[in-house]
Amino acid sequence: MNDRIFETVVTTCSPEGAVHVAPMGVRYAAGEVVLKPFRPSRTLDNVTRTRTAVLNLLTDVRVFAGCVTGRHDWPTLPVAGVDGAAAVRLECAHAHVLLRLLALADDAQRPTLRLARVHEVQHSAFPGFNRAQAAVIEGAVLVSRLHLLPREKIEGEMACLQIAVDKTAGAPEREAWGWLQEAVARQPAAALGEA
Amino acid sequence: MNDRIFETVVTTCSPEGAVHVAPMGVRYAAGEVVLKPFRPSRTLDNVTRTRTAVLNLLTDVRVFAGCVTGRHDWPTLPVAGVDGAAAVRLECAHAHVLLRLLALADDAQRPTLRLARVHEVQHSAFPGFNRAQAAVIEGAVLVSRLHLLPREKIEGEMACLQIAVDKTAGAPEREAWGWLQEAVARQPAAALGEA
Repeated sequence: MNDRIFETVVTTCSPEGAVHVAPMGVRYAAGEVVLKPFRPSRTLDNVTRTRTAVLNLLTDVRVFAGCVTGRHDWPTLPVAGVDGAAAVRLECAHAHVLLRLLALADDAQRPTLRLARVHEVQHSAFPGFNRAQAAVIEGAVLVSRLHLLPREKIEGEMACLQIAVDKTAGAPEREAWGWLQEAVARQPAAALGEA
Repeated sequence: MNDRIFETVVTTCSPEGAVHVAPMGVRYAAGEVVLKPFRPSRTLDNVTRTRTAVLNLLTDVRVFAGCVTGRHDWPTLPVAGVDGAAAVRLECAHAHVLLRLLALADDAQRPTLRLARVHEVQHSAFPGFNRAQAAVIEGAVLVSRLHLLPREKIEGEMACLQIAVDKTAGAPEREAWGWLQEAVARQPAAALGEA
């Protein structure tokens, strides 16, 4: 298996059609996508029930920063699912891949889902690396660990990342970065010195 | 103009057909690509003479790390240029865009080139964000400024970036990261405390 982890967004639907949007680090094996969601996980629940998921490849980092700061509602479009199951992709995806569950290796904390690529569709071109987008991804990782890390460390790393944001961001990256900064500022001072 | 800067690789040819591969931060305007190469620049020389360049969109970060560490020879493939001019794209590009020079605003240090998108071709899908790739891009920026920054600052930032490399890299990112580490280690200690 390729040991690289790619930061993507997985969209799933409940059998009743409720959409769930989840940023997720995935691995690619030959023709397969491997997810390891932490329990509890609505993605896990939905995939085990519908056997369908959609992998979204995107560079709109507002989705990543939004989901770690309570903004879960992102525009989606319906796509044909597996065996008639409901499925959606993110509207902003450069490409999406329809996935079908092949195997579930259960685990109390972190089950492993192996999914087959049923089909993939390109929607728009990858525009190249943007350092501000990468900074937002790193910032989103920090914010997702706010309760585990001392505020001093987070503020130091955010200050480093700020440089790339100032130099290379457009409006979407600045908006996403603002959400992350607000989340850090909101974190109670009790987190100080925890690590 | 979109104020975002995208890290891409621009391939150009001299009128005699000698290929030049240059990582470059570019901006996108409506239908145009804007380059601001620092003089002296073989990209500038080639584009002013052939009016042709190729924008390569890629995630193989070895090209970025390689070019700042003396590795300029990357596999290319010929593409049809503007008015019969020679042109090549990187073999590893997810997509390339053939560019034609529209206007040159000259400057002693940093001229501005405005280029039209003549046509673009997709070759492979964007696989999603990879944090190790972003770390290599940041490391390549640091290495390109080795002569301007104190070694202590560079080593501190490389240590931070190492975390994403350890967690999310595959073989290409580890190879690129190794080249950057070697370049930092080779830098003479005289750079200490310069900033």
